[in-house]
Amino acid sequence: MRIALGIEYDGTDFSGWQRLSHRDSVQGALEKALSFVAAAPIDVTCAGRTDAGVHGRCQVVHFDTEVQREPRGWVLGACSNLPTSVAVLWALPVVDDFHARFSARSRRYCYRILNRPVRAALDARYVTWERHPLDAGRMHAAAQALVGEHDFTAFRAIACQAAHARREVLAVSVRREDEQVIVEIEANAFLHHMVRNIVGSLLPIGRGEQPVEWMGELLAGRNREAAGPTAPSSGLTFIGPRYEARWGLPPEVSQ
Amino acid sequence: MRIALGIEYDGTDFSGWQRLSHRDSVQGALEKALSFVAAAPIDVTCAGRTDAGVHGRCQVVHFDTEVQREPRGWVLGACSNLPTSVAVLWALPVVDDFHARFSARSRRYCYRILNRPVRAALDARYVTWERHPLDAGRMHAAAQALVGEHDFTAFRAIACQAAHARREVLAVSVRREDEQVIVEIEANAFLHHMVRNIVGSLLPIGRGEQPVEWMGELLAGRNREAAGPTAPSSGLTFIGPRYEARWGLPPEVSQ
Repeated sequence: MRIALGIEYDGTDFSGWQRLSHRDSVQGALEKALSFVAAAPIDVTCAGRTDAGVHGRCQVVHFDTEVQREPRGWVLGACSNLPTSVAVLWALPVVDDFHARFSARSRRYCYRILNRPVRAALDARYVTWERHPLDAGRMHAAAQALVGEHDFTAFRAIACQAAHARREVLAVSVRREDEQVIVEIEANAFLHHMVRNIVGSLLPIGRGEQPVEWMGELLAGRNREAAGPTAPSSGLTFIGPRYEARWGLPPEVSQ
Repeated sequence: MRIALGIEYDGTDFSGWQRLSHRDSVQGALEKALSFVAAAPIDVTCAGRTDAGVHGRCQVVHFDTEVQREPRGWVLGACSNLPTSVAVLWALPVVDDFHARFSARSRRYCYRILNRPVRAALDARYVTWERHPLDAGRMHAAAQALVGEHDFTAFRAIACQAAHARREVLAVSVRREDEQVIVEIEANAFLHHMVRNIVGSLLPIGRGEQPVEWMGELLAGRNREAAGPTAPSSGLTFIGPRYEARWGLPPEVSQ
């Protein structure tokens, strides 16, 4: 039987999503908790791996098991065996051809920038600080150059292992909410560090150091070294993947 | 010269606002940082002390010093000597008859309840979890019985050291934002544990276990033992005090 789970996590104290032998990972914590509930080893496959310090609002995983548990049993059992920084939001039996990664039609990320003269004290785990005033309108206009299918080599980490750099950005927005500037982006899939590298290039545009057209020029140039630095991990949250409605998953991860 | 400061803090890892000899307090951390900047001992007086685990969005303090510093020097100097969970938002010279506590005309608090079947992972420091569905409309209606000047003995901690229990609640609201139920309350001043005791009695009304009229009955009964338990500290944030405009303080703490 294949089970899908929705997972929320605070990535601050983890080495990232992926299980590593001598580091605390979200995957490792989740598999340990699920294996305890199942009294048998459980391996999970996720919709999108996240780096150290990156958070998850609704990561989706699937796993196969012969153990019979009510969905509520997986949720409550896992939650009581997980550290407080990870929670299982829901569990649902799914058909065997559902795959958390390959069935996902798109992924959504949110990046929060605290934009004020003084660093964060409250919410410091969930924002990146920018002291220079940002023009969110300019950043929003610049980001629209990313919409559509493009080669995103300019915003791809050197260590990225993807076979090619073509991705389709479905929507991107930048808006201000009081002291925060919030970037939301949805794409069919993302390259390694792609969101953080995009944000790192939107920041100089927001500060007025680069023209609005710079974003499109960087994209067309396909030169990682010309683009801005990788923005810090703390501001980044993986909102979650989206699947076709036919899989019957909860609305926050359905199209 | 008297200086006023706005202070933001994450209270999770502190024993509370008040300086204690062998515990980490927000006041202790702030005085240590300011004394370092001034190269002389600094004692601060705050608008409202908060308990262990309670956060501050814009606590206000004042202190007296003969040391000459630009406001920016106090802010930057203190921030670089404070733990990451405390920040000085602004500094302003004020006249000598300004007093952070006695000049405050009112105080505002916010209480956040995560209302869903599963405990928090993200934002766990800033919310209290309630698994049973809450009717925010019922809670809002019930809370209106508190508005005005009353004897708040029903919601007063046994350890409260105030001379009397009469306080004036200026406004209170309860609203839902997605998975959160948010209580906001403004009063001329608060008794010890008053907000958490009020929330602890609004919760059974929100769950449907008590009628909307229960809040008014508890208030009139002046019996702490009849009211609900003290709600946990993690959901509580001191938004800050409000002063008359004549003191020239920033808009977030002015009337």
